[in-house]
Amino acid sequence: MTLSINKIKHIKSLRLKKFRQKYNNFIVEGDKMARELLAHHSEQVVSLYALESWLARAEGVKTLSREKLFQVSAAELKKISNLNTPNQVLVVAAIPEAKPGPKPLEESLSLYLDGIQDPGNMGTILRIADWFGIDCVFSSPDCVDPYNPKVVQATMGAFLRVSCIETTIERLHKAHPSLPIYGAVMDGENVFHAKLKGAEGIIVIGNEGSGISSEAESLLSQRISIPPAAHSGAESLNAAVATGILCAVFRERG
Amino acid sequence: MTLSINKIKHIKSLRLKKFRQKYNNFIVEGDKMARELLAHHSEQVVSLYALESWLARAEGVKTLSREKLFQVSAAELKKISNLNTPNQVLVVAAIPEAKPGPKPLEESLSLYLDGIQDPGNMGTILRIADWFGIDCVFSSPDCVDPYNPKVVQATMGAFLRVSCIETTIERLHKAHPSLPIYGAVMDGENVFHAKLKGAEGIIVIGNEGSGISSEAESLLSQRISIPPAAHSGAESLNAAVATGILCAVFRERG
Repeated sequence: MTLSINKIKHIKSLRLKKFRQKYNNFIVEGDKMARELLAHHSEQVVSLYALESWLARAEGVKTLSREKLFQVSAAELKKISNLNTPNQVLVVAAIPEAKPGPKPLEESLSLYLDGIQDPGNMGTILRIADWFGIDCVFSSPDCVDPYNPKVVQATMGAFLRVSCIETTIERLHKAHPSLPIYGAVMDGENVFHAKLKGAEGIIVIGNEGSGISSEAESLLSQRISIPPAAHSGAESLNAAVATGILCAVFRERG
Repeated sequence: MTLSINKIKHIKSLRLKKFRQKYNNFIVEGDKMARELLAHHSEQVVSLYALESWLARAEGVKTLSREKLFQVSAAELKKISNLNTPNQVLVVAAIPEAKPGPKPLEESLSLYLDGIQDPGNMGTILRIADWFGIDCVFSSPDCVDPYNPKVVQATMGAFLRVSCIETTIERLHKAHPSLPIYGAVMDGENVFHAKLKGAEGIIVIGNEGSGISSEAESLLSQRISIPPAAHSGAESLNAAVATGILCAVFRERG
């Protein structure tokens, strides 16, 4: 079939946050993530655009109603895709309601992203949360949108399992005043040696350029750090890499 | 002044490895890295293209011979830049001879990148090495070129301090047979608990999709892992994130 110009326009509009919010839809691309979405959250599928060869062998497609399925040519897929090299299938999916993980926050380790701007970092951080079993990632209002197509691609499917909830650190602290709030700062205590309160708390991850905001810093209950080598010339670690190191250490010592 | 078409062509050609190798030049962009290059490795500067405002206040510029300096307009900078938003200055620099760090390899922790393909990952890994004081990063011949402009940008200046040397793990092992070779694999021992031989050795970092090659895996003297949470749905960690976690733990326990 041939996609109408209006349909192409609609799908392309979902690259922008304002249209994702207007329609409550986002884009998932590629064989692996599309199959995962079909297998575990087929109720989220609004419409699916795929090459004939993909449709012929994809499990789960048959359970979708026919009006949601669109067989497209490689040229058509190229028109609607956000990837340099489109990967067989593109899904328009409904943005699910953001809800916290199954365990109460008081018994969980969570992240608070304080102004993460880079979509690749945001996606990689959600993937890290997925790996370390962190159910809930909070994000400040000035973070990149977690349903930005580049974020979704970088999660490698983690967006299906990790909740990302927009809030502020002030609100979190007010609602859960006893929950420890950790943050990596230059003069913090080596995370490998610091006394961590176990497996509960919120780790604040600062902005790529400016680090943790002063609002969040004033609410830290423990200042930690990932110490550089004595002769290091580097000024900082990448935000996602720092997140990975902190999560690994917390999980090991929690 | 106005840049000649030939000059623009030449600078743009350095986006490709074959021209970087032909001319032995690469591109460094942006205020911060250009200033670092001038301050510490001005001998590498072949030519420098910058806005008038940048030239007026950049230290170190005066020590460069005039024929290396080109004042350009914002429109001209846009023509030669690899960035979406050009940042004041672009330098054509000489690729330095790759040489190992100051300490013998037997007394150092090093990385061996086994087919890292993504320029962002490669740059981030060099930045991690810089942070943790790892002087030398070896890369397999099928890795992305460390002088690829996207790699250079992602290093945040680490390329000035960390040597990246192309070799094979077989050659490294032959030359240093007693050096431990570590690699993260699915069935490896938790890196937090494994007996690590101290601060010496080579950590192998596998390709983003396929992990450590069979050639490198057969040479591992210790199989380690970064264990996921019991209920994790993630298949893997990002290669740079895994590198960060391993380096942090080795430095802490070395």
